[in-house]
Amino acid sequence: MLTLQARPQPIRLALPTAQTPATSPRTSPLRAIFGANRAKLLLTYVLFNVENLLRLSQPFVLGLAINDLLHESSFGLLLFVGQHVTHLLISSLRQMYDTRVYTGIYSDLATKTVVDQRGREVGLSRVAARSSLSREFVEFFENHVPLLIKSAYSVVGALVMLAFYDRVLVPICLGLLLPAVVLNRIYSRRTFELNRQLHDQLEHEVDVIDRGHEPSIRRHYDAVASWRVKLSDCEALNFGTMEVFVLGVMVLALLRTCSSLTTTPGDIFAVFRYVLMLLMGIDGVPKLVQQFSRLRDLTQRMS
Amino acid sequence: MLTLQARPQPIRLALPTAQTPATSPRTSPLRAIFGANRAKLLLTYVLFNVENLLRLSQPFVLGLAINDLLHESSFGLLLFVGQHVTHLLISSLRQMYDTRVYTGIYSDLATKTVVDQRGREVGLSRVAARSSLSREFVEFFENHVPLLIKSAYSVVGALVMLAFYDRVLVPICLGLLLPAVVLNRIYSRRTFELNRQLHDQLEHEVDVIDRGHEPSIRRHYDAVASWRVKLSDCEALNFGTMEVFVLGVMVLALLRTCSSLTTTPGDIFAVFRYVLMLLMGIDGVPKLVQQFSRLRDLTQRMS
Repeated sequence: MLTLQARPQPIRLALPTAQTPATSPRTSPLRAIFGANRAKLLLTYVLFNVENLLRLSQPFVLGLAINDLLHESSFGLLLFVGQHVTHLLISSLRQMYDTRVYTGIYSDLATKTVVDQRGREVGLSRVAARSSLSREFVEFFENHVPLLIKSAYSVVGALVMLAFYDRVLVPICLGLLLPAVVLNRIYSRRTFELNRQLHDQLEHEVDVIDRGHEPSIRRHYDAVASWRVKLSDCEALNFGTMEVFVLGVMVLALLRTCSSLTTTPGDIFAVFRYVLMLLMGIDGVPKLVQQFSRLRDLTQRMS
Repeated sequence: MLTLQARPQPIRLALPTAQTPATSPRTSPLRAIFGANRAKLLLTYVLFNVENLLRLSQPFVLGLAINDLLHESSFGLLLFVGQHVTHLLISSLRQMYDTRVYTGIYSDLATKTVVDQRGREVGLSRVAARSSLSREFVEFFENHVPLLIKSAYSVVGALVMLAFYDRVLVPICLGLLLPAVVLNRIYSRRTFELNRQLHDQLEHEVDVIDRGHEPSIRRHYDAVASWRVKLSDCEALNFGTMEVFVLGVMVLALLRTCSSLTTTPGDIFAVFRYVLMLLMGIDGVPKLVQQFSRLRDLTQRMS
């Protein structure tokens, strides 16, 4: 909260390689953590995959429930209740197990980092900082990997389910991937450049404050504001352009789904939920790309 | 990133009262910022309200498009295209305008804080920290207020729209508010206590690292882990219990909507989108309550 916003400094984290005797000291920290906790991590991911399969089945089951109820059968409704109860049990259990696994890994890692570094007479404040930093690596497994799995289910899973309802919808939806890729390439290149310039400006902040010269202070904060405005404009333009393509896909999907005479209300419902799931999945991709590139940068600085 | 996790220390931010001549020096910082930027802030909120009204109309318009297409009319589809294009224009413009307003306010506030404090010979690192802290207050207007508006539209707006389709659905959905309130009261009391104990433990961290005694270090990190596990269990239990009530509401809504012989596919679609919008809105309330209580705490520490 009280940290100054500035470009992150390169920091070296001496990860305790002793904790993972099977791996060489040159192994990346992520590999080392995975190697030492393979079984537990795989179990959390298995549970998370089951949870996502259940999430993916929800529109299908709801659609079935609607169709069955309209024909005075409650089979679909019972299936929906079963799906919902299983999902809530699995996801609650997964969350409880997850936290035990990840806090355990962090606790081990932090203890070993501290003991190891204090043994080598590294300064107190550095060791404290490094023990917090080791949390970043645990977060890769705890947050970033599950986010990737979830996005894959939203995009690929939704496409598979749409193919089940109507094969023609798949190429329509795939047509969205081309503008998404092109727009994101332009966007990420542009924001990288703008962020670089914003960070360059932010690095002057303490100097400018130190000098205490009013016009320079004003000029500094105005420059910071102008980079932020440029970044925001870039984001708004990217979002607006993508939404035009999204609109195109939704119109085509509506025309296609509602023109077929055999379509039932439940199917229309399910198809639209999958289209929206796919669109939300595609929306999340840029954030995911940024997080991974940030972590790659962090790993490089530490190896 | 490198900050130690510890209980936030009370910090006094001398907000430049000179910038808002109309207000007395005892006025809260939020009131001062609002007073000095009334017109601009109100315009961003007006735009945000329009954006939310358009978002609220989407399920209705999509439902209409579906019903019309099934009757070989494309009136609803055109309305949907109009709704989507207006929404994307308004929201892009709002984002571009927003950033200009908030970066402008922050730039003014930070400049004045720095000039004022440097004039009074406050230390460099303090002034730097305070100029960053003034961002928290801008964020209240930039993020917290809009989140509150959005939640209100999701909960109240969805209920109003559901009443439009079928009045009986409103009491069914309102039935969800009672368990939501009760569960959140229990949950927030319990997490407040657990967080307090976690923070107490975290405050020992630097001392424990300093002493460098291996069993104490291990004991410290294990204690931190155990508080985190308790917090996570509490969250999982709260979520799981709430989901049981959510299931009840969804089953009742399905039974009600699909039993009526006059229901059209578009209406079923719209009703379910509103039910899901309401459920998501209710899900977001605890986070909102926590953010506001955090900010109230911050304001108290500074007044």
